[in-house]
Amino acid sequence: MAMHSMLSYDNPLFGKFAFYSGVVIGKTLLMSALTVRQRLTYKIFANPEDVEGLGGKEPTVSDQRVERVRRCHQNDIENVLPFVLVGSFYIVTDPDPWWATLLFRVFALSRCLHTVCYMVPIPQPSRFMSCLTGWGITAFMAVAVIRAGRP
Amino acid sequence: MAMHSMLSYDNPLFGKFAFYSGVVIGKTLLMSALTVRQRLTYKIFANPEDVEGLGGKEPTVSDQRVERVRRCHQNDIENVLPFVLVGSFYIVTDPDPWWATLLFRVFALSRCLHTVCYMVPIPQPSRFMSCLTGWGITAFMAVAVIRAGRP
Amino acid sequence: MAMHSMLSYDNPLFGKFAFYSGVVIGKTLLMSALTVRQRLTYKIFANPEDVEGLGGKEPTVSDQRVERVRRCHQNDIENVLPFVLVGSFYIVTDPDPWWATLLFRVFALSRCLHTVCYMVPIPQPSRFMSCLTGWGITAFMAVAVIRAGRP
Repeated sequence: MAMHSMLSYDNPLFGKFAFYSGVVIGKTLLMSALTVRQRLTYKIFANPEDVEGLGGKEPTVSDQRVERVRRCHQNDIENVLPFVLVGSFYIVTDPDPWWATLLFRVFALSRCLHTVCYMVPIPQPSRFMSCLTGWGITAFMAVAVIRAGRP
Repeated sequence: MAMHSMLSYDNPLFGKFAFYSGVVIGKTLLMSALTVRQRLTYKIFANPEDVEGLGGKEPTVSDQRVERVRRCHQNDIENVLPFVLVGSFYIVTDPDPWWATLLFRVFALSRCLHTVCYMVPIPQPSRFMSCLTGWGITAFMAVAVIRAGRP
Repeated sequence: MAMHSMLSYDNPLFGKFAFYSGVVIGKTLLMSALTVRQRLTYKIFANPEDVEGLGGKEPTVSDQRVERVRRCHQNDIENVLPFVLVGSFYIVTDPDPWWATLLFRVFALSRCLHTVCYMVPIPQPSRFMSCLTGWGITAFMAVAVIRAGRP
């Protein structure tokens, strides 16, 4: 019988997972700040009351200086949040710590690279490859969780 | 005093929840793959550097062969991720295992049906009903969590 | 050695976190219901099969009576889900319960205010300030989690 939870700092792997999860969610939060910066710099808003209060022309959701940041943010939402959810189950399956830590590190790195590729932008397929790397890691962990818990 | 965590495989309900969560998050991840397939097949991209590197006409976010998949993906984001989050709290409330397992199974089934309804597409209100089923299960669990934890 | 998990109702802070998480995720779920109400009231749909089955004109994703609700929902997705994920790690770091409870309460309040500001709408910068408050709390917790778990 386990005398402590896998989901506590008693489990060294939990601390690492929490660290890298904090990093990638923190990075995701920064996309909101970047969107706000773009909106205020270029006076691009989606709602009439924003234009009224903060200046700018007609409300729009098609200015690429803002939409590019929003697409990058959405990609984080679609990839980072599933990673943290699946990873939480994955560490409870008691995986090999060395391998699991490698997965967490490469995921965090791939998401940071994805943002750099999107924001610079760096020619394709750099962004695609960085996204695929993170996606593959989450998919791998999802399969491990499904196999560990099948009824 | 609980000698083991509710959030471990010592709790049979956790294993079931992890399994069905893995299934629905895995299904959500597949929407990214389907979006990529549509983009590459029809050469529909949202960014100039994608068109440059991978071919196609002007960047666009209004081609329905891609946008339909993206809307289905977004519906997963809006329903699957809250289910996994709320469900994690719900199993800690120590619910009746038979009932909880039924909820998890019906949720997973309803989300798979939702995707089939959206992608075929099957006439309404089939997609609406499958979405409503999953939504109702998450809402039910949210109420249970709120009642269990109210200060 | 901890004899019980931080992620159980044995930990009073967990109960509070579960309660406020249930509230903000429940609020997020209500945005789906509000979107459906707007779509059915004004007969505004995004897919041809919806128009066919439920009436209305051409499919569109630019009617502001629907899009405004969807933007508010998206803002919840971008802020509420990261809060619940980061908060789950944060309570495992064993924070001061009084301070942590305050953060959870202010977050829940700020998100409810955000929705009110968006739906009325109330002139800016009210919506911006309510969003910033919640964002700052999640960012604060993310930093605490990163600091607690750094390898």
